Amino acid sequence: MLSKNQIKLITSLKQKKQRQQHGFFVVEGVKTIKELLASRLKLHELYTTESFNIDAKTEVLISQTELKRISFLTTPNTALAIFEIPKPKPIDNKGLIVALDDVRDPGNLGTIIRLCDWFGVKELVCSKETVDCFNPKVIQSTMGSITRVNVSYVDLIDFIKTNKLPVFGAFMEGEAVYNKQLPEEGILIMGNEANGVSKEVEATVTEKISIPRFGDLQATESLNVATATAILLSEFRRR
Amino acid sequence: MLSKNQIKLITSLKQKKQRQQHGFFVVEGVKTIKELLASRLKLHELYTTESFNIDAKTEVLISQTELKRISFLTTPNTALAIFEIPKPKPIDNKGLIVALDDVRDPGNLGTIIRLCDWFGVKELVCSKETVDCFNPKVIQSTMGSITRVNVSYVDLIDFIKTNKLPVFGAFMEGEAVYNKQLPEEGILIMGNEANGVSKEVEATVTEKISIPRFGDLQATESLNVATATAILLSEFRRR
Repeated sequence: MLSKNQIKLITSLKQKKQRQQHGFFVVEGVKTIKELLASRLKLHELYTTESFNIDAKTEVLISQTELKRISFLTTPNTALAIFEIPKPKPIDNKGLIVALDDVRDPGNLGTIIRLCDWFGVKELVCSKETVDCFNPKVIQSTMGSITRVNVSYVDLIDFIKTNKLPVFGAFMEGEAVYNKQLPEEGILIMGNEANGVSKEVEATVTEKISIPRFGDLQATESLNVATATAILLSEFRRR
Repeated sequence: MLSKNQIKLITSLKQKKQRQQHGFFVVEGVKTIKELLASRLKLHELYTTESFNIDAKTEVLISQTELKRISFLTTPNTALAIFEIPKPKPIDNKGLIVALDDVRDPGNLGTIIRLCDWFGVKELVCSKETVDCFNPKVIQSTMGSITRVNVSYVDLIDFIKTNKLPVFGAFMEGEAVYNKQLPEEGILIMGNEANGVSKEVEATVTEKISIPRFGDLQATESLNVATATAILLSEFRRR
């Protein structure tokens, strides 16, 4: 059985302010919850229609109707868990680092976290205006990768300036990425969905790169930021 | 002013069955509507809070409150238009063709249509189970590319069998795409979000390719189908 207070807490965690106040975030689906249980993340409470056979104190068996009531999904999937938001880990300033300048769409951030995981990028550095990585839609689309990529929210310009790595940025007018010799270490900056990289951050970029367009002149004027990140990370890693 | 019948028609167009029955689909946002107006697509009716200065018979000026009532978006954007679903165009069996085997997520299909547009892929061939390209969420994420990519729904196996192009498919166990010499012509098959390419379609594939994973052993086990398509199309086009 779910208490009113439990329902209130869970639904409040849709909002960033409430997540930060309580220090909790919500994860749904058996597969992702199991991935998080196996990580360094700490479970607060698990609400499920089928037992996970874990510590009984944190597991609450609920009905399908109750799950529907608390779920953020249109098609709820067996279980919903509340995890503690982990303490931020310091950024490891080496290797390939992805930096996001004000990416707003939760699906895009989730996809980019999953891409970082696939391409062995350990550090994802976000401007303070970038969507919160503990937003339920972000968590949903990371498919567990949130446990393996260190996501930090910082003043992007300060971060770049105190760093010695070359700074790559995706720009329409940049050099075709296919012609570049890309290093193993560096910062790759991706910009906002509508406005791209901001002027202030652009000033810190040492190498502007672009993905050539092969469609005709009428073709779409831009790529989605997550698909552009996919192509550029692939270019950095291929040898 | 909106009539009850107009509201009923618009909201019914969320459903594929109703779209097929009426032969109409919905597009939102000034920018995308203008792109469609400039294409071969035929406008049925335009509902807008600001005049487009077009043929008065098809334009209905409405209030912000009325727009909110008919919009499929959480944040409606000035205008909503009903267009006629165009007659299918025959598939042009040359160049690079993308084929989707049961892609279900509207956002993924929309992103893939936009990618085809960017990379100059004119033909997108979909299995009959693939999500409808006139679904409002697909239209929203194509950003106008739907006017430049010919999307066809066919029996995928029949289509591949009557075709002479080499057939590439994305498989976890395929050959690393970075080591392949890719041709300018061919069919690239991308599979369903959860199950990949089906066994029946797999049997028609002549070259299995994969995107190497650079993360460690615990890393995410797959890429999202739209990001994988982005990387593979980039590999086909780069020289």
